[in-house]
Amino acid sequence: MKLNANYLNLKPSYLFSEIAHRLNAYCEAHPDNQLIRLGIGDVTLPLAPLVVEALREAASEQGKKESFHGYGPEQGYDFLRDAIRLYYEDRGVSLAMNEIFASDGAKSDTGNITDLFDKDNTILVPDPVYPVYVDTNLMDGRRVLYAAGTPENGFLPLPDENVTADIVYICSPNNPTGAVYTSEGLKAWVDYCVKHRSLLLFDAAYEAFVSDESLPRSIFEIEGARKCAIEFGSLSKTAGFTGTRCGYTIVPSELTFPVNGEEISVNSLWLRRQTTKFNGTSYIVQKGAAAAFSKEGMAECRKNIDYYRENANCIADTLKDHGIRFFGGINSPYIWFECPGGAESWEFFDIMLNRIEVVGTPGAGFGENGKNYFRLTSFNTHENTQEAMRRLAGLLSERS
Amino acid sequence: MKLNANYLNLKPSYLFSEIAHRLNAYCEAHPDNQLIRLGIGDVTLPLAPLVVEALREAASEQGKKESFHGYGPEQGYDFLRDAIRLYYEDRGVSLAMNEIFASDGAKSDTGNITDLFDKDNTILVPDPVYPVYVDTNLMDGRRVLYAAGTPENGFLPLPDENVTADIVYICSPNNPTGAVYTSEGLKAWVDYCVKHRSLLLFDAAYEAFVSDESLPRSIFEIEGARKCAIEFGSLSKTAGFTGTRCGYTIVPSELTFPVNGEEISVNSLWLRRQTTKFNGTSYIVQKGAAAAFSKEGMAECRKNIDYYRENANCIADTLKDHGIRFFGGINSPYIWFECPGGAESWEFFDIMLNRIEVVGTPGAGFGENGKNYFRLTSFNTHENTQEAMRRLAGLLSERS
Repeated sequence: MKLNANYLNLKPSYLFSEIAHRLNAYCEAHPDNQLIRLGIGDVTLPLAPLVVEALREAASEQGKKESFHGYGPEQGYDFLRDAIRLYYEDRGVSLAMNEIFASDGAKSDTGNITDLFDKDNTILVPDPVYPVYVDTNLMDGRRVLYAAGTPENGFLPLPDENVTADIVYICSPNNPTGAVYTSEGLKAWVDYCVKHRSLLLFDAAYEAFVSDESLPRSIFEIEGARKCAIEFGSLSKTAGFTGTRCGYTIVPSELTFPVNGEEISVNSLWLRRQTTKFNGTSYIVQKGAAAAFSKEGMAECRKNIDYYRENANCIADTLKDHGIRFFGGINSPYIWFECPGGAESWEFFDIMLNRIEVVGTPGAGFGENGKNYFRLTSFNTHENTQEAMRRLAGLLSERS
Repeated sequence: MKLNANYLNLKPSYLFSEIAHRLNAYCEAHPDNQLIRLGIGDVTLPLAPLVVEALREAASEQGKKESFHGYGPEQGYDFLRDAIRLYYEDRGVSLAMNEIFASDGAKSDTGNITDLFDKDNTILVPDPVYPVYVDTNLMDGRRVLYAAGTPENGFLPLPDENVTADIVYICSPNNPTGAVYTSEGLKAWVDYCVKHRSLLLFDAAYEAFVSDESLPRSIFEIEGARKCAIEFGSLSKTAGFTGTRCGYTIVPSELTFPVNGEEISVNSLWLRRQTTKFNGTSYIVQKGAAAAFSKEGMAECRKNIDYYRENANCIADTLKDHGIRFFGGINSPYIWFECPGGAESWEFFDIMLNRIEVVGTPGAGFGENGKNYFRLTSFNTHENTQEAMRRLAGLLSERS
């Protein structure tokens, strides 16, 4: 039996294990520490009451013969797909029901979508980047190119006509930088992909954090996107579903690529993939997700997002006050800033840890272009975030 | 962008759409019909009360800050993996915690495991077969060979030393035939795989239906299996989780294959696959699953299995009374029988439908060797199953 040898080309994912290693060492040496963790990439507030009620009710349904649900449609129940359809329609994006595939999460879908691609495709990802886009393609042996995110382009690289890529990954609002593309920026990528017949994979996991109404929250707000793009959505940050698990993928019916001269529908391939290798996500979770997308449910979910947004504002204000260049934080739960004094990101990690007992994420963990940057997140409490910012302000004042 | 052209080699899955087509036509022509469906491959009884209570309680936990669960371990919480470990230990199979991976279901795992294999492997599946084993490999362009299941071998093919296969799929109790391998039969496959350094993929989805204590319920009851096998388990039939979704995969630490002369751990590759392309199954569902594996929960689940077993007995008795050769039905929810009078399975489907209004599944849908066989399942009610058997008995008496 021959294993897939491409797995041996993956780099071990050092980032979070190295952070854990340094934290453990610090905590052992300082048992009375008062560490504040602003490295968390996970929500901390509970599910909305309407969602909990829907989950409990669905669990009870599963306990009665007359309301029991066995196998459901692999692509999700109509009640959930229709709720997602309306969620998009509210923003002026019309989707057909068969273009919506519900799942257990955007991470599964972004990973599994690679099943549909030949190995012989060149991938283009931004640097810095969410490592999953890279690793899932290296696992299949595809070539990966990087588009440089820099302070000059606001960590929002635009297409380079000298670079030919078959598949482009865009995440906006971005993880890790928090930067958000304008419609013009996304239009440039859509035009590039339509022109080169490339596929645009758009990760919209953080769209609910966009408060500026001029910024796009879906790639399908951009003209031409239905001919070149797939969008991944998630309830993880929108509705706090990181542990409850629900996401969705939009594959427009116009999206086709040629095989032996014939145009093949990507939607039909994804349907075949999901019906063959997936059995739908839990009925109970789908009921909870549909409740989150209801008008009242979404109003409850928005309260949590507003709470995190206040944290993001608090961090952004502190950085502004001290003249630190940063990205994100306004329409995103992530704040990405330049390490003061030109420090390298692991060096600054140690300074934050040892001097003020605040934990963040070194930008180097997301790519070469992150090596002088640092990521903080807005998912801790107001109290902890404010205290961390008091400490950071002290540190920055001292160094200036 | 180049699509994965292997998808174009998949046959459309006619079976269930053709059944639906014929049923619709019949129901339109006979609006007052009293159809009984014994083709169902899905459970119909509700979840056990303890499971429902655990699901409701976990949903409530998700609604409170102090008990909220965000991202969990991709391979499942320790509380569930330990419950699975104990479920195996009760049958004398010792597993380490890191050999157990919880997931959203065995269908996902059996499909996704192919990520770990090079395209250049030859697959061996039985015929008749659960189509997912074949399709997931054709999607990657692998060559598929068939081991003939025949009445002579009890639909339990044994290894043929003249056939070289890199990866072997075995499902026991079998879908669709209901046949169950003895320890000797499984030992022959384990020996074949160890000798040829082939991988044995063992689908144990129906193990809970085995009542004969001399029959193996796990491949790891067989000596040598830890060196060659992966096992897929499911709560779908064991605990009625077809719509609630939870399964698990066992990858022993001894399982290695050489890459460039170095022995590579399959467990570590699967861990890397799952941590990269999966984010764990819902915390709520995991709590429900752990309750199902508790002593009291399993006692409740067994009541449902016993209920289905009575249906299987009723079907088996009817076939026996009329001298019809059948397989399964005793340690399995499926009964697979020879179509009377040498009929072809679609022909017999039409006879059953038109003459006695009972719906089953034509064996031809599972492979060439099923073309004179018919599958009935035990998942309908006692009342409906008994009535269907009264009608079948009438039909068979008439024909004899």
